Amino acid sequence: MAYFDSASSAPLHPVARQALVASLDEGWADPARLYREGRRARLLLDAAREAAAEAVGCRPDELVFTPSGTRAVHSGVAGALAGRRRVGRHLIVSAVEHSSVLHAAETHEADGGTVARVAVARTGSVSASSYAEALRDDTALACLQSANHEVGTAQPVAEVAEVCRAAGVPLLVDAAQSLGWGRVDGDWSVLTASAHKWGGPPGVGLLVVRKGVRFSVQGPADERESGRAAGFENIPAIVAAAASLRAVRAEADAEAVRLRELTERIRARVPSLVPDVEVVGDPERRLPGVVTFSCLYVDGETLLHELDRAGFSVSSGSSCTSSTLTPSHVLRAMGVLSEGNVRVSLPMGAVEEDVERFLSVLPGAVAAVREKLGAPVSAAEVSVAKSAEEGVLVVDALGRRCPIPVIELAKVIGDVPVGGTVRVLSDDEAARLDIPAWCEMRGQEYVGEEPAERGSAYVVRRAR
Amino acid sequence: MAYFDSASSAPLHPVARQALVASLDEGWADPARLYREGRRARLLLDAAREAAAEAVGCRPDELVFTPSGTRAVHSGVAGALAGRRRVGRHLIVSAVEHSSVLHAAETHEADGGTVARVAVARTGSVSASSYAEALRDDTALACLQSANHEVGTAQPVAEVAEVCRAAGVPLLVDAAQSLGWGRVDGDWSVLTASAHKWGGPPGVGLLVVRKGVRFSVQGPADERESGRAAGFENIPAIVAAAASLRAVRAEADAEAVRLRELTERIRARVPSLVPDVEVVGDPERRLPGVVTFSCLYVDGETLLHELDRAGFSVSSGSSCTSSTLTPSHVLRAMGVLSEGNVRVSLPMGAVEEDVERFLSVLPGAVAAVREKLGAPVSAAEVSVAKSAEEGVLVVDALGRRCPIPVIELAKVIGDVPVGGTVRVLSDDEAARLDIPAWCEMRGQEYVGEEPAERGSAYVVRRAR
Repeated sequence: MAYFDSASSAPLHPVARQALVASLDEGWADPARLYREGRRARLLLDAAREAAAEAVGCRPDELVFTPSGTRAVHSGVAGALAGRRRVGRHLIVSAVEHSSVLHAAETHEADGGTVARVAVARTGSVSASSYAEALRDDTALACLQSANHEVGTAQPVAEVAEVCRAAGVPLLVDAAQSLGWGRVDGDWSVLTASAHKWGGPPGVGLLVVRKGVRFSVQGPADERESGRAAGFENIPAIVAAAASLRAVRAEADAEAVRLRELTERIRARVPSLVPDVEVVGDPERRLPGVVTFSCLYVDGETLLHELDRAGFSVSSGSSCTSSTLTPSHVLRAMGVLSEGNVRVSLPMGAVEEDVERFLSVLPGAVAAVREKLGAPVSAAEVSVAKSAEEGVLVVDALGRRCPIPVIELAKVIGDVPVGGTVRVLSDDEAARLDIPAWCEMRGQEYVGEEPAERGSAYVVRRAR
Repeated sequence: MAYFDSASSAPLHPVARQALVASLDEGWADPARLYREGRRARLLLDAAREAAAEAVGCRPDELVFTPSGTRAVHSGVAGALAGRRRVGRHLIVSAVEHSSVLHAAETHEADGGTVARVAVARTGSVSASSYAEALRDDTALACLQSANHEVGTAQPVAEVAEVCRAAGVPLLVDAAQSLGWGRVDGDWSVLTASAHKWGGPPGVGLLVVRKGVRFSVQGPADERESGRAAGFENIPAIVAAAASLRAVRAEADAEAVRLRELTERIRARVPSLVPDVEVVGDPERRLPGVVTFSCLYVDGETLLHELDRAGFSVSSGSSCTSSTLTPSHVLRAMGVLSEGNVRVSLPMGAVEEDVERFLSVLPGAVAAVREKLGAPVSAAEVSVAKSAEEGVLVVDALGRRCPIPVIELAKVIGDVPVGGTVRVLSDDEAARLDIPAWCEMRGQEYVGEEPAERGSAYVVRRAR
């Protein structure tokens, strides 16, 4: 059994566990109180702040502990926007930010602000020039993740920070995925992170606001954590977060080399082990432990179940696995295949044997899902009809979820002559992404999407 | 050494510790994931929710876990107000609510809403009729604590809930101080609580919203905890919170009898052990473990230091102890003496011997502070001058902090004839409360407050 989803939540680091348990007896009192128990709690809190600040590379009084990374992002975005309200209400985010950033942006929009969403390359990376183009006179804040949580692509934070600095716009960096690996380079203004992503306990986020950055706390007043994180301090968890960050950092360089080799192995071998696979994300500029790929003709949820039964815990950005019915906004923004998506994110300490076993199990798991999905599609469910005009086939996949529309397209493409077209009728959100991606993988021509009575018609021309 | 400040934060209950440590290994994964580790985390979270709901007396789907009691209050107030925005923007709170409620009310006011602050009796209690009078057609929400955190007075929640229900207005009950002792009676709509107040770990609050209550979550969207508490779930702490609430409840009835007897002992004996003391709060309708008193001519911070050195950890609502320079809003609303204020809040398991030792140490500690404060006041620092008019003394205590203004008043009252007046010039916020309180305790007549060149002049007529 192997847990390969540390990008969601890392198993608790032994140092975190130890520090948490040790500080339960010393860290429960109110650190604002002047008596013995309060002073003891205050000492623990101060020491943790110093350790965390050292790891981040900031002054202790620039860093506060929040109840989660999400809360750090929400408070950081709201506070930075409010601090520059006089300048304007324009916010820049990348299209592939974590949902906490995107939701904060939506709230800003609902409140009358404007948001620019910077597009990414097919690797998932933004460019500094895109940020430069997005900057306006009324831009209050720009946000950029240090690395993407779904595909592992590292972002050019230092370059983007430079562009923002030149324009006098603060840059908020969501460092949730990378802080365990090292400090964030560049001249950022606000930084957020989440302890459970580096093996710290749940219940602790970091919010760092550089001195001189205009910041206006939103929400009800609270005297704790410089007024930036309301609520009683969770000192045992804070101590554990700081201690584990330091411990993880001590192992980070060596572990990065090791995990990078293991994920490189997956990147390199999956395409030859499994037919019709697209490995996504930047092959070089990426997190050491993350590798993501998508498999044609596969339902992500079923594949996750197959892999779970084989002892592997991974996650997926396929719409098929989520309750929202839309594929991951990251895969959409990248324009890559979303069906049969698998993210492998190795925790520190992941062992080679487990990776090898994963590679040996994966082809069978994918094949099993494909067999299951390929077989039960009966003619009654999907009607294929020649239209009056010769060389045009219509596939009615309405009401069918991914990957069925793509599977049906693949089945009939040979039935039209080269130069002929197939119109796939689908009301599944994933089709919009997966049919063009299939065309690219298969060397067929994607003509475009047309409105239809229900859903859309996706038109594909047979090119070979 | 005895910790008598459980109303700030209770020491971790052994069951909480045990449950927290036990669930560290099972509760770190994302409960939204479908693989083994996620399913295990989900089971823990579901079981904790059921246990907490049973203790509160609500349905599990009415209860969410927040990162703190403060966050529960902030979210609860904002959500309930927004849910009834169409009705109006009038909010009712008592004048003695916890600062988290009052700060949420201030935010509402700053955003254009209106707030009524219901006055309390000298015991600290509100009346249902005051709430009835405060209700308006545009009242969106009323808030009332189940019991006061500074003086222990229990509030008539069921009666106030009935009045609100009759008017169709939801009542939010801040049950932070009482939930460990039992369910909150009455037909409330929203309830909040904080685990570290009952011996649970920090990092967990409860927010309960009854079915049918209009509630509109504010802030950025987040899919967790029914959308009502953003951020990754702190499952080990949540498990510990629920387990300890159950454990504490099992002991509550017997412990309430025992602690009530111990606090009754303090209530009864402090006035005879220490001269010039006012015991505050309702003597009957109160929390079992809390007793609060104020000592004339005493600086609260110095007294806390004396008691800390003697091995007792207590807190104080005196302005002298806080960085805000204003005395506790609770004592102010009650109109009782604020100087030399001490709150004793016994944790469950507090032992009789410690209480007896506290009673034996207290008189000496108070006497020491009084001696220290009485001695250094030199004629050069406080000038006393007979005015032209016979029988009027002016005491200039400008720039002096409590309890000096009251000490100076007490020193000179004998210098004017019966019927004569003393004008105390003071710019200390506490004087506004403490000079009238002194008059009441001493049987002197408080004439009133008049504007002065700096600060205020407090006029006292010698009555005996």
